[in-house]
Amino acid sequence: MDEPKPLRPTSEATLRRLPIYHHLLQKRLATGIKTISCSQIAEELSCDATQIRKDLAVTGIKGRPKVGYDLAALILSIEIFLGWSRVRKAFLAGAGHLGSALLGYNRFHHYGLDIVAAFDRDPDRVGTKVHGREVLPINKLAGLAKRMRVEVGIITVPAPVAQEVADFMVSGGVRAIWNFAPTKINVPAGVIVQNEDLYSSLGVLLQKLSAAHRLR
Amino acid sequence: MDEPKPLRPTSEATLRRLPIYHHLLQKRLATGIKTISCSQIAEELSCDATQIRKDLAVTGIKGRPKVGYDLAALILSIEIFLGWSRVRKAFLAGAGHLGSALLGYNRFHHYGLDIVAAFDRDPDRVGTKVHGREVLPINKLAGLAKRMRVEVGIITVPAPVAQEVADFMVSGGVRAIWNFAPTKINVPAGVIVQNEDLYSSLGVLLQKLSAAHRLR
Repeated sequence: MDEPKPLRPTSEATLRRLPIYHHLLQKRLATGIKTISCSQIAEELSCDATQIRKDLAVTGIKGRPKVGYDLAALILSIEIFLGWSRVRKAFLAGAGHLGSALLGYNRFHHYGLDIVAAFDRDPDRVGTKVHGREVLPINKLAGLAKRMRVEVGIITVPAPVAQEVADFMVSGGVRAIWNFAPTKINVPAGVIVQNEDLYSSLGVLLQKLSAAHRLR
Repeated sequence: MDEPKPLRPTSEATLRRLPIYHHLLQKRLATGIKTISCSQIAEELSCDATQIRKDLAVTGIKGRPKVGYDLAALILSIEIFLGWSRVRKAFLAGAGHLGSALLGYNRFHHYGLDIVAAFDRDPDRVGTKVHGREVLPINKLAGLAKRMRVEVGIITVPAPVAQEVADFMVSGGVRAIWNFAPTKINVPAGVIVQNEDLYSSLGVLLQKLSAAHRLR
């Protein structure tokens, strides 16, 4: 399989759909099926087959007319494209409720992310274990990240300290930050930030609800 | 201010940016400023001013040339459009780590959502309080939702029981479900579902990281 070389960045919508296809494909593989077509996937997910064909094309795979895709090859193609074929190490900062919840997501590892340790500044939390991961003092984060070549940082601290924690991560050589704190963080060019902003998600939900009321 | 009557649904991207503008505008209002222009907002957020003008237009507000928007009116306009001007009651099912984290988000109320109670099936959790909200047995959810006219349900239970909980919510008259369980839930037409799928967010993050590696 050729390494995909996209001419322009893949849309975020496509990147969000690929894991959904992957999830379905793995369930199908477990039933013993060897091939699958876009229209079969479309029917299962109640989506548009043309959209699915375009989404899958970004991974570089080609289906065969009237047969579809080789199922195992398609799964692997998605995994390689999404970067799951390589497991990356992550540090999580903020071992409160949200941090603990994320440490309990047991499929992150399968998707290419290994949260190797958690960090907190609360002395009561430091030294405990959450879902098998040790909670270390936050001032060790940068040094350990550098030594262990940790690539991903997850921020689950309160908003007022998020920037400080992001700075520790950047100085430790972290190259991508998954930010759950409801605030903007500033990082140098070249560091990827993905914000998981629940307030803006809530905005979308409530607007849909208001719009539905208006239509009635 | 006229009630906005969009001819077609507002894009999700716009709906996600409006709360970000709102957050900035409130901070500006606190400094005593009375008006603001799109270019000022653009500079603060490092975004495109034309995009901001288009986004704000969906709320039905009009700015004045060379002056910009009346700041208080703009804030109100966004709040009305997003449905924040009316507070809706919500029930949360699943008082584990993630559920507890959400109960601790103290700005949900300000954004139009009041989580009035939590539900769980674990007898050890039932009867306790999490961030001031009582944890009730899950079998009371449907009846109470109906009686209290609860409009929003938040699902933070494990994936295998998410559908059952969604069914309770629907039978209790809930009209919008915010689903944090990493699985698809089926609801009747007319019920809004918003999935907060962290696995697909992780997919986006890791793909960006892989793409950045490829470019170097």
